[in-house]
Amino acid sequence: MSNERAATLYVALADEIAAQMATGTLRAGDKLPSLRELRDKRGVSLSTVTEAFRLLEDRGLIEARPQSGFFVRHKLVEPPPTSRPSTEPAAVTVNRRLWDYLQLTRGKQHGFCYAVMAPECFPNSQLQKLMNEALRRSPTLLSEYGGTRGLEVLRRQVARHAMEWGGRLSADDVQITAGGIEALNLALRATTQPGDVVAVESPTYFGLLQLFESMGLKALEIPTDPEHGISLPALELATRDGGVAACVLMPNFSNPTGSLMSDTAKQQLVRLLAERQVPLIEDDIYGEFYQGRERPRPAKAFDETGNVLYVASYTKLVAPGMRVGWIAPGRYRSRVEILKYINTFSTPAITQATLARFLESGGYDHHMRRLRKLCNNQLARLNDGLDRYFPAGTRWTQPKGGYLCWVELPQGADSTALLRQSADEGISFAPGPLFSARHAYRNYLRLCAGEPWSDRVETRLRRLGELVHRQLDATPAKLSSDSHALFELG
Amino acid sequence: MSNERAATLYVALADEIAAQMATGTLRAGDKLPSLRELRDKRGVSLSTVTEAFRLLEDRGLIEARPQSGFFVRHKLVEPPPTSRPSTEPAAVTVNRRLWDYLQLTRGKQHGFCYAVMAPECFPNSQLQKLMNEALRRSPTLLSEYGGTRGLEVLRRQVARHAMEWGGRLSADDVQITAGGIEALNLALRATTQPGDVVAVESPTYFGLLQLFESMGLKALEIPTDPEHGISLPALELATRDGGVAACVLMPNFSNPTGSLMSDTAKQQLVRLLAERQVPLIEDDIYGEFYQGRERPRPAKAFDETGNVLYVASYTKLVAPGMRVGWIAPGRYRSRVEILKYINTFSTPAITQATLARFLESGGYDHHMRRLRKLCNNQLARLNDGLDRYFPAGTRWTQPKGGYLCWVELPQGADSTALLRQSADEGISFAPGPLFSARHAYRNYLRLCAGEPWSDRVETRLRRLGELVHRQLDATPAKLSSDSHALFELG
Repeated sequence: MSNERAATLYVALADEIAAQMATGTLRAGDKLPSLRELRDKRGVSLSTVTEAFRLLEDRGLIEARPQSGFFVRHKLVEPPPTSRPSTEPAAVTVNRRLWDYLQLTRGKQHGFCYAVMAPECFPNSQLQKLMNEALRRSPTLLSEYGGTRGLEVLRRQVARHAMEWGGRLSADDVQITAGGIEALNLALRATTQPGDVVAVESPTYFGLLQLFESMGLKALEIPTDPEHGISLPALELATRDGGVAACVLMPNFSNPTGSLMSDTAKQQLVRLLAERQVPLIEDDIYGEFYQGRERPRPAKAFDETGNVLYVASYTKLVAPGMRVGWIAPGRYRSRVEILKYINTFSTPAITQATLARFLESGGYDHHMRRLRKLCNNQLARLNDGLDRYFPAGTRWTQPKGGYLCWVELPQGADSTALLRQSADEGISFAPGPLFSARHAYRNYLRLCAGEPWSDRVETRLRRLGELVHRQLDATPAKLSSDSHALFELG
Repeated sequence: MSNERAATLYVALADEIAAQMATGTLRAGDKLPSLRELRDKRGVSLSTVTEAFRLLEDRGLIEARPQSGFFVRHKLVEPPPTSRPSTEPAAVTVNRRLWDYLQLTRGKQHGFCYAVMAPECFPNSQLQKLMNEALRRSPTLLSEYGGTRGLEVLRRQVARHAMEWGGRLSADDVQITAGGIEALNLALRATTQPGDVVAVESPTYFGLLQLFESMGLKALEIPTDPEHGISLPALELATRDGGVAACVLMPNFSNPTGSLMSDTAKQQLVRLLAERQVPLIEDDIYGEFYQGRERPRPAKAFDETGNVLYVASYTKLVAPGMRVGWIAPGRYRSRVEILKYINTFSTPAITQATLARFLESGGYDHHMRRLRKLCNNQLARLNDGLDRYFPAGTRWTQPKGGYLCWVELPQGADSTALLRQSADEGISFAPGPLFSARHAYRNYLRLCAGEPWSDRVETRLRRLGELVHRQLDATPAKLSSDSHALFELG
């Protein structure tokens, strides 16, 4: 009896959700009434509503979020296919394109462009208070070098928080840096020489490619699944002959796809690279932006040999303007420290002291819970908008964390040309070719859902969809049976 | 009549000064009684005293300091000779030695070791106040990226202050960096490729050599006079065949010697390198620490073609812990900006905003006048102590600015071994071989007079002198008629 009632309620609710989503009254990410509200409204028992919701959840129409209730889930969309980059290492020449991109998007960082949340998402007044306190407590904080490794009080907090993902670090294992990007710099310089080949996901973060270019490194782009991350068989093959000097990956919510490797895959990855003596530089700056119940472990959690150089940052988490990142360099510790010494010598003590206090006080954990909810909602809205406004045949990723989305437009689209048009209207994003050493991904783009959703954001996304439609209408689709061509040509 | 009286007074005063210096009652850097006081004491006219002081000044026994009075001048000492490094470029391997040095001196930065003034020399409470104000005024200052170039409000102030040395810069010509060391990084990466040869002074700053090592650059060490800077004829010869990719110099108060190039030499330097299309990276971080009436102009003041990348920093001037430097990259502007983007992305906005206000308020100029006086006094005391405590045959530089001193110990001394001994007693300095790509300068050391002089500092210097004496007594001097050997061997 109860099951029948629940099934009837399920059908009614599923129909209503579909109808309301079609008219736009309801959207992915919206909160549903509580179980008790529905019970009272529909005059059924609580167990019936609970059962109906379970059916909706099973069928992927809604999702439960701990301590928050039930939410409309975004439609499951087919993600872009696994990438198939060239098997040859390439000298990187992304410099010129990146410069053009920076010029086009300068001062428009609150569109879909920069991979950072909007300033109002951060605990500004709390940090101000802590900074004032730190200044009062240590009168010479502004005139003392904080030491090249960073303040011990911060390194201790960092190590303590790392225990949550299984990190067995002491304060001495931690090197503070000027944001995550400096940590990547130090890690690459500690493990490579100019001319070396470095394996990366494809697509991968353009800043990393630009680092390669500036250091004279060659990128070996490895096939990567936009949901599950790098192909281990391909990486195994690529590292077989000893020609790969290092490997830089983002196992948790990669930039740009948002892919997440499984724990098993991470374990295999760590073992493979330790055996081959290829250092793994793990960029985990999005790891804290998980949406499930548990933070995904980084590969570093499985590192027994010190072969993993683990890079993280509080920039995207707590305060972009404070520029505090860190690295746990494993067996490259002394090399990384000396490189920090000559790169920026030390990180400002005042920002470190403020952050240490924020971590210690528990303010951090509270803030991150809020930030994760914001991200989830923004990603859901973005998904919803892509479904609504973009041409049929568009595919995109639905990451389980972070706030980035990797979008494949139908063949014939050109995201670089699209940006030139949209930037004129104040709408920016990162075009696909930036994410490849060979300027592949011409019809791809990365959208960042860093800004709390609003009508303004929605309008921008709709307009971007219109521009894509227009571009495709103007350009007869260049159909290609050989999808390889996509990755070989600029 | 007046001249005779003045001459008599001069002789009497000179004798007294010499006698009191011999007993230690009077020391270099001590203030003399004022003209009026002496007039009253000696019962002579003011013009007689004035004339006697002029004679003392002419003979180098005392010096006038604007708005401060007359001071005992340090004895003129013969500086170390012009260096004669190898004419072949060298791959740099200072890394290991620098690491040992860092371990030996860790936590002892207030000795003669680190090239920075002590925390109490900086305007801490003023900066704290300005930082609090900045936070109150801009609530999202901690959560916004300041932009890759840096805050415009700071860049404007920087450009305005550069006018004082003849800098014709707009805010757009200025790139803010994480201290001077990041600026050097960006400048080198903007102008060189791995394997390139870069010309430097000899001796030169070890951080620069370490940068070379990490970038795979070769150092071509050019003969340099410890008083007047790099030898232009030697540089002319070295750049003749197009084999030099860039040149990094410190024309104003070089590290470690404190040498100062003349304006004429700077003009010739700029012209030569522009003709040869060899970019000049000018490190001017000590330029503001001048002792004369006018700030020496940097080479950048003579740059007509944008060939000079000018590096400066507020780290050593205003607040070491804030880590704010800058570069005026001339025609390498866009390249430097994109390199900043991938090195640390941006500099914290809060420290920039604080510094901008400090510059704007006039607090900076006031503070620097005080800092220069401190430096002058500390350098004088250091000179005096070297004369008093170090073995005969020791030679050192007497810079016209900065607070560094380059000391040549008698043959047979080994400054690296000396550091190992002295560090045990908490006395640190930088040993000579750190300042050369080839580990020359074995019997040289750099002393930094960054700490306000005190009995503790004096005691340390005396003890260091004792250790030198002891080392020389233990080691029979290895006499060498070929001073070249000094520079070729480790």
